[in-house]
Amino acid sequence: MANGDKTKHWMGFDLGGTKMLAQVYDDDWKVIAKERKRTKPGTTAKQGVDRIIDTIKDALKKADMTSEDLKGIGIGCPGPIDMDNGLLLDLPNLGWEAVPLQDQVSKELGCPVAVLNDVDAGTYAEYRVGAAKGARCAIGIFAGTGIGGGCIYRGEILRGAKVSAFEIGHIQVMSNGPRCGCGQRGCLESVASRLAIAAQAARTAYRGDAPHLLENCGVDLSKIRSGALSSSIAEGDIAIEEIILEAARYIGIAVATSVNLIGPEVVVLGGGLVEAMPDLFVPQVLRSANKRVMPAYRDSFKVVPAKLEDDAGVLGAALWAEHRLS
Amino acid sequence: MANGDKTKHWMGFDLGGTKMLAQVYDDDWKVIAKERKRTKPGTTAKQGVDRIIDTIKDALKKADMTSEDLKGIGIGCPGPIDMDNGLLLDLPNLGWEAVPLQDQVSKELGCPVAVLNDVDAGTYAEYRVGAAKGARCAIGIFAGTGIGGGCIYRGEILRGAKVSAFEIGHIQVMSNGPRCGCGQRGCLESVASRLAIAAQAARTAYRGDAPHLLENCGVDLSKIRSGALSSSIAEGDIAIEEIILEAARYIGIAVATSVNLIGPEVVVLGGGLVEAMPDLFVPQVLRSANKRVMPAYRDSFKVVPAKLEDDAGVLGAALWAEHRLS
Repeated sequence: MANGDKTKHWMGFDLGGTKMLAQVYDDDWKVIAKERKRTKPGTTAKQGVDRIIDTIKDALKKADMTSEDLKGIGIGCPGPIDMDNGLLLDLPNLGWEAVPLQDQVSKELGCPVAVLNDVDAGTYAEYRVGAAKGARCAIGIFAGTGIGGGCIYRGEILRGAKVSAFEIGHIQVMSNGPRCGCGQRGCLESVASRLAIAAQAARTAYRGDAPHLLENCGVDLSKIRSGALSSSIAEGDIAIEEIILEAARYIGIAVATSVNLIGPEVVVLGGGLVEAMPDLFVPQVLRSANKRVMPAYRDSFKVVPAKLEDDAGVLGAALWAEHRLS
Repeated sequence: MANGDKTKHWMGFDLGGTKMLAQVYDDDWKVIAKERKRTKPGTTAKQGVDRIIDTIKDALKKADMTSEDLKGIGIGCPGPIDMDNGLLLDLPNLGWEAVPLQDQVSKELGCPVAVLNDVDAGTYAEYRVGAAKGARCAIGIFAGTGIGGGCIYRGEILRGAKVSAFEIGHIQVMSNGPRCGCGQRGCLESVASRLAIAAQAARTAYRGDAPHLLENCGVDLSKIRSGALSSSIAEGDIAIEEIILEAARYIGIAVATSVNLIGPEVVVLGGGLVEAMPDLFVPQVLRSANKRVMPAYRDSFKVVPAKLEDDAGVLGAALWAEHRLS
């Protein structure tokens, strides 16, 4: 970056379970430079934070910048976040607890940092520049291996006093339902995540009721990805289609609960599952939710697929940094 | 009121299914004068609004005031409300639909009027001067014949774009549960309202498993009120206590959903059922909710009985008028 150029930039950072991604944005929220690294499992929080800082520095290098060229950095992380203090509270996959990410990154880079939940970040991006642009109240539901949620209410991320909120994947949608990773039963995630669907699909394939899925990927859950499910339906596995529709029906129940409580105008559906099969998910979620809400809320909301796909999280983190730190 | 006295006052109004109540408040939110009338069923909306206006005028007369002595009136009504336009959208019990209450009362009285949902009003009163005073986020759950809910988020009533929200009585807490008045199955109201509990209690008494309840009020649902349930438990009807604890457990599931989504610090429990048996309800709701929330939210909220009892609705309407119209 030319020394005479005074323009300063926002950076977004997405800390995922398998990769981390830093992106520098221009004033139109186009990506100037990016850097991606693997998130190494089995490292300490200290090593992890060092790796985050290295990734940020490498992205700056690619943009021919230093941290002095940054107005600030937004960092989206999985799990519950203490947004006021920028603490990453609990990352069971990585074994990290109570990491003061904001302080450490801010001190090392010398610029302001805002930390938020990654799904809040994705929902915020959809609210600012995506499928829910400008909505008074928007909720985002992102269905992948798990199910995450976010809610933007009057321009701000809806949140708890100390911890981020809108954990829609862990509200109960089935009494005495399957055991969930959080320890409870019948959470939305336990019946409608990619993992929940894959487990049912594998069982169905094993029984002989989904011949195309069986032929394409056998009954190994790790191979039954969203694309494989979608292909098997296209090839004629009606039983798999029924499993997807049933999962979407449960997402609709969770949407109905959210509408009855919060009254959003826009529900954004994203994540690998929905991206692979938007035409199955979106109308079924709408139908199920509309049937379940109180009459006064019927047709008061729309259900739309996410627009921003993979980059929503990192972009949302940068947009949130602009909102919080400007 | 002496003509020279320039102090102006706020009025609260509560429109109930069986009675209407107007109260004039002083600067310390003490009641100066009140007027109560029966809400006559089978009248037109026009007759109903006239009766509301008469009640307001009679309360003013008792206070030795005219409407010129009012800063404004807050009117709490059951059912969904269009808060921006002050429309009462749907009162099935009275057969009223889309009544422009704010315009009509404001025009007739010549002072500003704010219309809100009655349970939002009660929750707002608890937030301003009651059990949830000053909370960043508080939810109120009022269990009587039905179950109503309200949420105050950062000083404002949480609401939908066009309609009031937080209809916690109609979120699903039991898959394929009993049929609810709203047309759905397994709503909180269908398993934990006074009516739901009375129906189970009557069945239990009829079977011979609640001898005290049977002796005190037979198996007529209209006679199995909160006080009768409480007395029968005190006299030794363990089966009735179990029914209450089960209902409280379901309220806890709804609280857990609210905590997972919105993260309130305070949950206020009110209504006839809870007032009659706070020691049964409050700890059981807390236990059930705490067990069901995500680990990050455990012990992040308290569950408390309402402080303001019967007057919460009318006081909350006046307080809301002050907040909205000042």
